[in-house]
Amino acid sequence: MNSTTPTAQLAAFAASLRFDDIPGPVVRRAEDLLVDWFGSTVAGHGSRPVASITRFAQAMGPQAGPSEVIVSRARTSPYLAAMANAAASHVAEQDDVHNGSVFHPATVVFPAAVATAQALGASGRELLTASVVGYEVGIRVGEFLGRSHYKVFHTTGTAGTLAAAAAVGHLLGLDARQMQHAFGSAGTQSAGLWEFLRTAADSKQLHTAHAAAAGLMSAYLAQDGFTGAAQILEGPQGMAAGMSSDADPSRLTDGLGTRWATAETSFKFHASCRHTHPAADALLQVMQAHRLQPEDLDRVVTQVHQGAIDVLGPVLRPATVHQSKFSMGTVLALVARFGQAGLAEFDRHFLDDATQSLAGRVSMELDAEVDAAYPQRWIGKVAVHTLDGRVLHGRVDEPKGDPGNTLSREEITAKALRLAAFSGGATAAEMQAAIDALWRIAGVPVVGNLLRQREVSPAHV
Amino acid sequence: MNSTTPTAQLAAFAASLRFDDIPGPVVRRAEDLLVDWFGSTVAGHGSRPVASITRFAQAMGPQAGPSEVIVSRARTSPYLAAMANAAASHVAEQDDVHNGSVFHPATVVFPAAVATAQALGASGRELLTASVVGYEVGIRVGEFLGRSHYKVFHTTGTAGTLAAAAAVGHLLGLDARQMQHAFGSAGTQSAGLWEFLRTAADSKQLHTAHAAAAGLMSAYLAQDGFTGAAQILEGPQGMAAGMSSDADPSRLTDGLGTRWATAETSFKFHASCRHTHPAADALLQVMQAHRLQPEDLDRVVTQVHQGAIDVLGPVLRPATVHQSKFSMGTVLALVARFGQAGLAEFDRHFLDDATQSLAGRVSMELDAEVDAAYPQRWIGKVAVHTLDGRVLHGRVDEPKGDPGNTLSREEITAKALRLAAFSGGATAAEMQAAIDALWRIAGVPVVGNLLRQREVSPAHV
Repeated sequence: MNSTTPTAQLAAFAASLRFDDIPGPVVRRAEDLLVDWFGSTVAGHGSRPVASITRFAQAMGPQAGPSEVIVSRARTSPYLAAMANAAASHVAEQDDVHNGSVFHPATVVFPAAVATAQALGASGRELLTASVVGYEVGIRVGEFLGRSHYKVFHTTGTAGTLAAAAAVGHLLGLDARQMQHAFGSAGTQSAGLWEFLRTAADSKQLHTAHAAAAGLMSAYLAQDGFTGAAQILEGPQGMAAGMSSDADPSRLTDGLGTRWATAETSFKFHASCRHTHPAADALLQVMQAHRLQPEDLDRVVTQVHQGAIDVLGPVLRPATVHQSKFSMGTVLALVARFGQAGLAEFDRHFLDDATQSLAGRVSMELDAEVDAAYPQRWIGKVAVHTLDGRVLHGRVDEPKGDPGNTLSREEITAKALRLAAFSGGATAAEMQAAIDALWRIAGVPVVGNLLRQREVSPAHV
Repeated sequence: MNSTTPTAQLAAFAASLRFDDIPGPVVRRAEDLLVDWFGSTVAGHGSRPVASITRFAQAMGPQAGPSEVIVSRARTSPYLAAMANAAASHVAEQDDVHNGSVFHPATVVFPAAVATAQALGASGRELLTASVVGYEVGIRVGEFLGRSHYKVFHTTGTAGTLAAAAAVGHLLGLDARQMQHAFGSAGTQSAGLWEFLRTAADSKQLHTAHAAAAGLMSAYLAQDGFTGAAQILEGPQGMAAGMSSDADPSRLTDGLGTRWATAETSFKFHASCRHTHPAADALLQVMQAHRLQPEDLDRVVTQVHQGAIDVLGPVLRPATVHQSKFSMGTVLALVARFGQAGLAEFDRHFLDDATQSLAGRVSMELDAEVDAAYPQRWIGKVAVHTLDGRVLHGRVDEPKGDPGNTLSREEITAKALRLAAFSGGATAAEMQAAIDALWRIAGVPVVGNLLRQREVSPAHV
């Protein structure tokens, strides 16, 4: 294999990164992202599609094993635990996102990395290092695949297989050549189409489950000598050839070891598709600045990038809570009514007459400046038309949760506690204990259960 | 969901087909294909990539279960058994192929269907009906995706998820609506890129393993209420939108219930990529008609369709036995030297000086007639230049194994026995007993192990 190809360089980086190579602030950010992911995973408790995938994983896997299924408190093999946890952590639409790649790293990287770390008895430092590897690889693959890819493919599902393979491969100690084979096996299993949005189907959870599991499998196979394509990303019959028309191989190796894409990742504040956040924050800005009430609004024009129109445009009359998170109108109506669009607002109010009425008066139009800045910057611009005839303009350059407008550790902890309280996946005390332990993960010699096994009284056994 | 869309119609057909709807000759052909697949699966015994996937499946799954892993004689859950058996049945390049769709149905349909039938205790008739459903669906999806798809994607991996989901969904008793959901989940996991051929990597086994397992998962999830896109095939962000530029939705419903694509499937005679077979048979014809010896040949020009050039063209100097099966030169050299290109000829002679010398004098050129007929008909044309200055033309309109030039049950049995003898995956007596039982599958009330568990003497326990 030619070590000068972009895929080979990326594989070599993934195999060789050491904890001490990672700047302290990037390690701290990785811890933030891990805690944030954990909250999103517990939030998947009680979700019907997550329960289906979890039941399947547990039925097809062993009834005991080294790896934790977080929503059910069961244990199984790392492959099936990764599958179940990846399904769980994406459903609340509260997991992190990297703007430039339009890729959600946490939900594919951490499930695979945590399940493997538990199976291997890896240390917290090893888990963090492997997770950074997964982020750095997955984000670059997402950037490489480009905007044309995202029009049809769910990048988190496709780039996600590579991200998971990189993280697991690092934990397994793959050398550069084996890592390149793992990439080959992961990329040739890359999948995930946006078509499901049109009928509000459950596929988003399947995409993350698939990516984490297929990526983990690819790394384990590579450790066993199984080979993959040398240039699965940029080769003439590789991922870009099949699934992109604007792929840029230079993105695969952009700043490896000096630019830390992990730290560019944004936290989600609203519980909706990230494409709605810039406009939501811009609307909030206008309403706060002008002390508007929802009753004051005539209509809202959001000025957006093409990707928002591609993803959100087909969602005209959301039929489910999950689909409503992809409705620009619903998100803005909830924000106008409640000052935020969190899990509780969606669950209780997405079908309210007041929500639907306002949602129907929200429109999207393509904005040249916003579109040109995307995906590096997600600018939010709105024109708010009030019933008394004013047109008020709002603008945010970094929506809440972006690196320049990030969440504090207190905010991350509070968000995770809210998510657990909403789903009922853990008690406040259990969550607080688990989060406290996760903030100290870098010092843990062996990664164990993240969530304490439930105390079962003899009467319940 | 709109029952008039092609996907909905295909799903309704898949859900509703009954054994008595299938013409007797099609049932008989399905039995032929099942026995032929079984031979190919046993042929996977001892293959390094198959062993890797089997080890992974067994390590990640339960150590006992209702479904048989044929190459290892182990038992596990249906999901992981399907994964392992699908890897096994494609490696010898002796499994069946449907010409028009360039799709290998057996290696994705039977592993999923047999594993599920064993788990459910289904009857032989139910297994055969479900298998026909898998063939009819997978072949039409392959035809739908078209030639542009096949340039980059391995159709057996991509259409294979749908084929496996259809077969398993039928065994699970899904109704039309659930079947459509299963299709949605299967299609959004469709994957498989040809890039691996360039470096002779192991991905082909991963593609079939992935397709069978992902398809099975999709059907089980649908039974549990998990939803998928309504129009995963032809929708604006579906498979065709992402992975084809010449998709034809009319192919999805072509002759449903009257045209039996199952019976159009070809058996492989040579142990190589099907794209080499027409030219191999045409060369054999010339050599037999003119009583030529390999020493008489100066060079051979094969006149082929574009798909052969796309798949075989990159393989210039095959480095492995498996890669040599994708080398037109190697295949024709073996055929010229030995009268056939079977597993033994590849294994022992692909690197011989005589093979390599002749292989280097075989070329491919695009032929307008052959290309226009493809993929419905795989015409073989060669121009043989002899050392004494003659140019002799050979032509076959149906290579050996095609429906009009098919294998008898005796030939299918003999082929399966040869494959088992070559791999050592079963003794001749074990194979004969298993094949005898498979020929009677339609009368079996409960599908059990295909291969008898090995008798283990107490000393070996």
